[in-house]
Amino acid sequence: MVDKEHIAAVYQKIQDEICIALEALDGKAKFEEEIWEREGGGGGRTRIIQGGDILEKGGVNFSAVHGKLPEAIKKSFGVEQEDFFATGVSIVIHPNNPHVPIIHMNIRYFELNEEVRWFGGGIDLTPHYIIDEDAIYFHTALKDVCDGHHPNFYKDFKAWADRYFFIKHRNETRGIGGVFYDKLTPDKTGLSYDQLFDFSCDLGRTFAPVYSELVNRHRHQPFSEQEKEWQLQRRGRYVEFNLVYDAGTRFGLETNGRVESILMSLPTQANWFYDFKAEPNSPEQKTLDLLKQGVNWIA
Amino acid sequence: MVDKEHIAAVYQKIQDEICIALEALDGKAKFEEEIWEREGGGGGRTRIIQGGDILEKGGVNFSAVHGKLPEAIKKSFGVEQEDFFATGVSIVIHPNNPHVPIIHMNIRYFELNEEVRWFGGGIDLTPHYIIDEDAIYFHTALKDVCDGHHPNFYKDFKAWADRYFFIKHRNETRGIGGVFYDKLTPDKTGLSYDQLFDFSCDLGRTFAPVYSELVNRHRHQPFSEQEKEWQLQRRGRYVEFNLVYDAGTRFGLETNGRVESILMSLPTQANWFYDFKAEPNSPEQKTLDLLKQGVNWIA
Repeated sequence: MVDKEHIAAVYQKIQDEICIALEALDGKAKFEEEIWEREGGGGGRTRIIQGGDILEKGGVNFSAVHGKLPEAIKKSFGVEQEDFFATGVSIVIHPNNPHVPIIHMNIRYFELNEEVRWFGGGIDLTPHYIIDEDAIYFHTALKDVCDGHHPNFYKDFKAWADRYFFIKHRNETRGIGGVFYDKLTPDKTGLSYDQLFDFSCDLGRTFAPVYSELVNRHRHQPFSEQEKEWQLQRRGRYVEFNLVYDAGTRFGLETNGRVESILMSLPTQANWFYDFKAEPNSPEQKTLDLLKQGVNWIA
Repeated sequence: MVDKEHIAAVYQKIQDEICIALEALDGKAKFEEEIWEREGGGGGRTRIIQGGDILEKGGVNFSAVHGKLPEAIKKSFGVEQEDFFATGVSIVIHPNNPHVPIIHMNIRYFELNEEVRWFGGGIDLTPHYIIDEDAIYFHTALKDVCDGHHPNFYKDFKAWADRYFFIKHRNETRGIGGVFYDKLTPDKTGLSYDQLFDFSCDLGRTFAPVYSELVNRHRHQPFSEQEKEWQLQRRGRYVEFNLVYDAGTRFGLETNGRVESILMSLPTQANWFYDFKAEPNSPEQKTLDLLKQGVNWIA
């Protein structure tokens, strides 16, 4: 059975592969790496790219940490055990061009002992302007990965993403969703741990080609000042979601996580104009109209 | 004994006075008003100023709402009663010039019945660059108001502000603090409700002259691109505090408050560069060094 050292090693390799692919995609900026150690045990490699030709700010982080579980987490997980191990890769990319979407990907593994172990993760897309063909392409790619592992994964995890990436106070989804899953075990899925691990690796390895395709579709598309302003407002919503709702962000901040690694998800710049409204029948309004739960991009 | 209609009427008048003073101070921008009604009862007047000569974005909001208390709040207040009344004035100002500070003021009154009523509020200052003389001026003005009502108010509420306006994950205060108080009653203070009301009005009326003085000290001070960038980064911290910690903001978002009125506290623009650091011995580093709890500006 796949063990935690192996999972961490493969996740670290996936981080490498993705960074190489993103540098090639951008063509200009390079990742800067910071290796850090966690006081309680383990550490990580934070990799940040800034000021690229297309990637304005992005982070591709790997970590593998272990130690004693904080009281609050023991409670929230309903467990008594103290020792834990967690590893994962976490990505957020904010592009310059408003016609290129923001993207987020995460694959993670958590273990208390041989009996209590699970996988979590997901990919979701936040276009500043929703383009139907891109949304269909994105969801089809995710469905293909899911279908290779379990007939229900896409349907279930797509619905889960709709519920999770939701800005309640705006009554808006963060973007067009994608897939999200947590605490996957053989009991719940009928797949072995080895098979769940394979699924998470496949999902992780889908990120770079899918995002490259979306970037290449729009990287040379010109944009107006007004479209840039819209992008900055949409980034404001992204900040709202991440700081108010995102479980990973809040959990990290509450448990003295590495702040700059956690908040690499925030854009270089975000704007908030009071009561900013889209013009009726504009592409901006069309985007707002699609920021709803339960939109089925694949028939 | 002062009743809720009277309190709301005076608070509304204080909103008027402050808006007139701020328009005169700015000299260019005018407030735009939105009158709104709350579904459950009551409503408010949101007043926003944007694109001023000095006031880049600010809100001076009044509300007086009543109705049935949501379950979550009954729990958090430890009360059984259903009907409530709440009124207050709430202000946040983000200036253009990084040498002019961000300011926040709030006075509020909450009532369940004749027995369960209290006052809350405060003023705090967030300079992008901390200037000792300004900090001393600001805290002295607050101490003068407090001393006119109770010998312990300044000391107690200054310490409360230090605890409240704290960005835990950054281990930084939001600014140089000020005063903060909540659930003030005759039992706790030895002052009558009338006297507590007078204190809140005095505090509210201190806002405009104090902020005007601070603006006028720095409004013509030139600033560099680097100083502007620093301001935008500091605004990022302000966003972090308000979305992650501020009780009023989170409470409003969780209880379906009026989102645009609540989030008027967010700046037009905020920036996050990865791991942005101040130069050693710079004015920026001096400011960071002073963003600590327990700095006593008045000997």
